Amino acid sequence: LLKLYELAGAEDDRLFSPFCWRIRLALAHKGLVAETIPWRFTEKDRIAPTGQGRVPVLVDGDRWIADSWVIAEYLEAQYPDRPSLFGGASGHALSRLYNEFVTEAVQFPILWMIIRDIWSHLHPRDQAYFRNSREQRLGMSLEEAVADRDLRVKTYRRSLDPLRRVVEAQRFFGGDAPLYADYILFGAFMTARAMSPFSLLEADDPIASWRERMLDLYQGLARNARLCS
Amino acid sequence: LLKLYELAGAEDDRLFSPFCWRIRLALAHKGLVAETIPWRFTEKDRIAPTGQGRVPVLVDGDRWIADSWVIAEYLEAQYPDRPSLFGGASGHALSRLYNEFVTEAVQFPILWMIIRDIWSHLHPRDQAYFRNSREQRLGMSLEEAVADRDLRVKTYRRSLDPLRRVVEAQRFFGGDAPLYADYILFGAFMTARAMSPFSLLEADDPIASWRERMLDLYQGLARNARLCS
Repeated sequence: LLKLYELAGAEDDRLFSPFCWRIRLALAHKGLVAETIPWRFTEKDRIAPTGQGRVPVLVDGDRWIADSWVIAEYLEAQYPDRPSLFGGASGHALSRLYNEFVTEAVQFPILWMIIRDIWSHLHPRDQAYFRNSREQRLGMSLEEAVADRDLRVKTYRRSLDPLRRVVEAQRFFGGDAPLYADYILFGAFMTARAMSPFSLLEADDPIASWRERMLDLYQGLARNARLCS
Repeated sequence: LLKLYELAGAEDDRLFSPFCWRIRLALAHKGLVAETIPWRFTEKDRIAPTGQGRVPVLVDGDRWIADSWVIAEYLEAQYPDRPSLFGGASGHALSRLYNEFVTEAVQFPILWMIIRDIWSHLHPRDQAYFRNSREQRLGMSLEEAVADRDLRVKTYRRSLDPLRRVVEAQRFFGGDAPLYADYILFGAFMTARAMSPFSLLEADDPIASWRERMLDLYQGLARNARLCS
């Protein structure tokens, strides 16, 4: 049985890590079932066998695997007869830029705009750690970090133009059906969905339509997850 | 015989369009030979059969095909037994983001930093048209557009981090061998090579190493092209 350590918020089923969501969807894509083990930022000792302090962590028998990209490659290699996450060797190579570009240029700005909301939906035991570490990293308070988000989101939406034109031309980044590249981008929107009421996209945005298609996948796996209330 | 209308500068063999370079490399990738027809901005009548005014334009018998992405798809469909430009259906779908993202977020900033140099290496008959149209688009003179490029290039180099991490991990964006995704990015560097002495990358940049590998392809097709003198 596979086990997946996943970052949880105030409630055990408020799963909000963009990287964990990439793997949740990747497992569903492969038709694999993993037991979710809710995990908090301050429980680094529980994933000590990986030699690092972040989730997702996949446990497969006596193997502990960390880092979402490495886990995706592991699943692809271990389960070659299941639907491919990359669509072949070329697709695997081409997906790496999605991993780098989306994490830095798409996901980080989202997290920055909702970081105060994330804090407010964390488990109490994580709140002080999160505030201290993030305020140090950003060089400002969480409240300052989101103060101008109504302005910033407009610039942000324009910055998504290249992504927008892709999903105007095709249903998914992977083509007619989703690939791991889609899950990379989708993870960031799931963090927002779980933790913040802030509206990242306009309703008529083609990226919002793509997001709806992603929410429908695998019997609504993502749509049925715990929302920001 | 295939013919390719390509943008030329002062000399007929100073080929400098990033979009045309994408197709020059794509043709070589497919092992196809096309006759280059040098073309200038002010010769829109010569490509009138395409109903638009930009190159590259590929002429295959009585078919005239415009738009580099459409041409790449045409070559892939017409020559399926030659080496694939996309690496299959998934690679084709995944390559579309490269087309959109590189053109807007990587190529445009390069052109903006060297736009005055481009002007100075144009054929005289194109210079007034180019200056007028670009100054209108940018809302400033070509000289103003490049005035702070020594500062801007530092921000620019940092913005390439996601691309950099990919070519630190693998030889080409397509993996062990280049795909059309590589040609998309490389085209912008060929514009700079043909038209400007300005240094876009530091010598020890992994992207510069990738660029060297690209210059080596196809018996130095790109390396042997006319340089900025």
